[in-house]
Amino acid sequence: MLEDLKEQVLKANLLLPEYHMVTFTWGNVSGIDRNKNLVVIKPSGVDYNKMKTSDMVIVDLDGNIVEGDLNPSSDTPTHLVLYKNFSNILGIVHTHSPWAVSFAQAGLSIPAAGTTHADYFYGDIPVTRPMTENEIEKNYEKQTGDVIVETFKQNNINPDEVPAVLVNDHGPFTWGTSPKNAVHNAVVLEQVAEMAYHSLQLKPHNIKMDQILLDKHFRRKHGKNAYYGQKNKS
Amino acid sequence: MLEDLKEQVLKANLLLPEYHMVTFTWGNVSGIDRNKNLVVIKPSGVDYNKMKTSDMVIVDLDGNIVEGDLNPSSDTPTHLVLYKNFSNILGIVHTHSPWAVSFAQAGLSIPAAGTTHADYFYGDIPVTRPMTENEIEKNYEKQTGDVIVETFKQNNINPDEVPAVLVNDHGPFTWGTSPKNAVHNAVVLEQVAEMAYHSLQLKPHNIKMDQILLDKHFRRKHGKNAYYGQKNKS
Amino acid sequence: MLEDLKEQVLKANLLLPEYHMVTFTWGNVSGIDRNKNLVVIKPSGVDYNKMKTSDMVIVDLDGNIVEGDLNPSSDTPTHLVLYKNFSNILGIVHTHSPWAVSFAQAGLSIPAAGTTHADYFYGDIPVTRPMTENEIEKNYEKQTGDVIVETFKQNNINPDEVPAVLVNDHGPFTWGTSPKNAVHNAVVLEQVAEMAYHSLQLKPHNIKMDQILLDKHFRRKHGKNAYYGQKNKS
Amino acid sequence: MLEDLKEQVLKANLLLPEYHMVTFTWGNVSGIDRNKNLVVIKPSGVDYNKMKTSDMVIVDLDGNIVEGDLNPSSDTPTHLVLYKNFSNILGIVHTHSPWAVSFAQAGLSIPAAGTTHADYFYGDIPVTRPMTENEIEKNYEKQTGDVIVETFKQNNINPDEVPAVLVNDHGPFTWGTSPKNAVHNAVVLEQVAEMAYHSLQLKPHNIKMDQILLDKHFRRKHGKNAYYGQKNKS
Repeated sequence: MLEDLKEQVLKANLLLPEYHMVTFTWGNVSGIDRNKNLVVIKPSGVDYNKMKTSDMVIVDLDGNIVEGDLNPSSDTPTHLVLYKNFSNILGIVHTHSPWAVSFAQAGLSIPAAGTTHADYFYGDIPVTRPMTENEIEKNYEKQTGDVIVETFKQNNINPDEVPAVLVNDHGPFTWGTSPKNAVHNAVVLEQVAEMAYHSLQLKPHNIKMDQILLDKHFRRKHGKNAYYGQKNKS
Repeated sequence: MLEDLKEQVLKANLLLPEYHMVTFTWGNVSGIDRNKNLVVIKPSGVDYNKMKTSDMVIVDLDGNIVEGDLNPSSDTPTHLVLYKNFSNILGIVHTHSPWAVSFAQAGLSIPAAGTTHADYFYGDIPVTRPMTENEIEKNYEKQTGDVIVETFKQNNINPDEVPAVLVNDHGPFTWGTSPKNAVHNAVVLEQVAEMAYHSLQLKPHNIKMDQILLDKHFRRKHGKNAYYGQKNKS
Repeated sequence: MLEDLKEQVLKANLLLPEYHMVTFTWGNVSGIDRNKNLVVIKPSGVDYNKMKTSDMVIVDLDGNIVEGDLNPSSDTPTHLVLYKNFSNILGIVHTHSPWAVSFAQAGLSIPAAGTTHADYFYGDIPVTRPMTENEIEKNYEKQTGDVIVETFKQNNINPDEVPAVLVNDHGPFTWGTSPKNAVHNAVVLEQVAEMAYHSLQLKPHNIKMDQILLDKHFRRKHGKNAYYGQKNKS
Repeated sequence: MLEDLKEQVLKANLLLPEYHMVTFTWGNVSGIDRNKNLVVIKPSGVDYNKMKTSDMVIVDLDGNIVEGDLNPSSDTPTHLVLYKNFSNILGIVHTHSPWAVSFAQAGLSIPAAGTTHADYFYGDIPVTRPMTENEIEKNYEKQTGDVIVETFKQNNINPDEVPAVLVNDHGPFTWGTSPKNAVHNAVVLEQVAEMAYHSLQLKPHNIKMDQILLDKHFRRKHGKNAYYGQKNKS
């Protein structure tokens, strides 16, 4: 069942150690089949170097296990909320990558400070508000998804144009047009977090790029007028 | 004698260079057999790439060499104090890993700043007080253990829930449920130290996480209500 | 056509991942044949590990494709402006290497702070002024070249003696006496940016080296009185 | 001639890239035969991966080439001054390792901040005063050695107990009981520089360790009462 997606999700999970994005088992990738409304996700707490395609767990959008012998990632309810609310995304990644976590622990968003950021993210990477006692104690992982969705709605951020978030005092979630693309965005996020950190140390509070330059670089790579890469080659 | 434990301790020592936790010979791992009250520990100043099982030294809890041709680690008396006072621990690691040492040299504890920390350590990683002239000059390594134990007692910290300490102007000790688990905690400590450092630069003095979130994450992975990983899988 | 230069440009591009200078496809190298006034450049958005000599694109100084099936790098117009205005240079590199970008995002030049810098760059690495709305919206990549040239002219900097620039809120361009030499300068730039950053944190605003020491080190390696290396042998 | 020493010096030079201490050719190691008063040193500007034993250059203490087809390192006169003035040392290393250079560029010594430092260096790593115009313009490399020697004399530092220095706005020299030991000290220097930097960011101006702890750790490893390692094993 969903063999191709399970293969994609396994491979995307294995990219996390390859790109040095995880310590031990601290990360997970999922993918969704939008026709069947089924999500494939990494099992909880399993070593990357032992994971097989058959270890991937299939759940429906209510979190029921449809196939798989192992527990799905404990972050599964967060993934499900994002798939239900961000209707175009096809893959999700959660890591504890250190530069992104450093901003999350400081409760700070990552400012759009240069063209590397603008090539992938159309604006700052938002940080969620701290969760309430209630949210933490009941259905914590689902509530984590809810507070992410709230952040994007209240700030009018389009999740297709800013495919990343920092959960306060926790860490990053990224998403994208496939499990692999979501990993790609996780790697870029970590890189722009590192550079924004250093720019902020050199020039505190004053590193935001011009909106026009942000528009230019994002539109150069995204949308119908994109001219980067080999896309417009007949 | 204690061949299995010697093998475990050797392997755990070899994990230190594998996880990039040591420069030259700056680290040591030990393990204890609680039935026999014997401790297996790395020899002093021997290269990791030349160490063999038979180089491991067996000492009793008074520090007498029971088996082995080499001098045990000069930090052996510190390990022994910890085994005697922290009655559940089965493995101990000492390193000079750079992020943890940076906090130790500043005389600062590592604040619990996010869920990565909370997944492993139930509260701040404490730093010991500076040792007195007397403590340094007589039985220095044993006194190092004593000041660690004092730190946990005076601050009511449970060493099973915070399996790490920073010795002032020196470096970290970690412990755990096995020599390998103690190394695991050493790696996590280094990672949370790195992230806490950067969070502190972004938001000085103000990065502590909510106690409720700390409770949630620690309890999600530890104790009888843990639901992370495959533990509760029948 | 230009097989030797295409080979040189391919090899120089492949040095970028080898020296850990790029994430994904974020970098490009070109070379010029000054007799034929033709430029060889990397195609846009192609993975380094799949690139072949035959993928290199040949363009003339007006940007017309003379040979090649792929789109040239989107930064091609910037390269062409530099070749037209800096008449001695034979290779150009653009990267998003993180330490150089951190200065670019802060809008700061990299101060000549020590002999490592002085061995390669005769003075600070300048940062360009922010580009205007007009410059960004029309012929952006060409205008990027123009603002680089303006920076060198207005500050009387000799591009042969300072073979690097930071484009504001964007990243570095370096150049040199060959495509390979331009990569060499990109690696040095990243290293001196890293060290200048840390020196600035230790001693803010006050790390510039003496002009006499700068002269000494630059002249020790460059120009007719150089005595470094094996150049003046036999 | 001096085949064994040439072999030692070659191997010690090759340790520099192995320990990630150099970029390109930015480093050199020498060794001395105290009976013959001859120094073996790396040639200038030669790639580490191409260097052979026969490329090593032999010079006398006045800098005359006694054997070798290549130019010796341009830093040879600095090495010679150190061998003449620090009569016990048998190997010298110069690198541009980035953390040590960061302190040198800030004109700051590296404070003895913890036991890692104290295990190798009996006090702060001094930084030299800036050189004068005269010193830079005439016999620069020899004068670099003179200013190092002056620093140790004026501050009553024993070069056998503090086998390292930072040359102002330049970088580190280390030395030791053999070429290999000098490289070992260069690696330790870089590590303690990195940790002192981060400790200083956490607690500016206030990270010096107690003198008694410094004494304890240095004497634990050095001198007649040392008890670290396997030295006192019969």
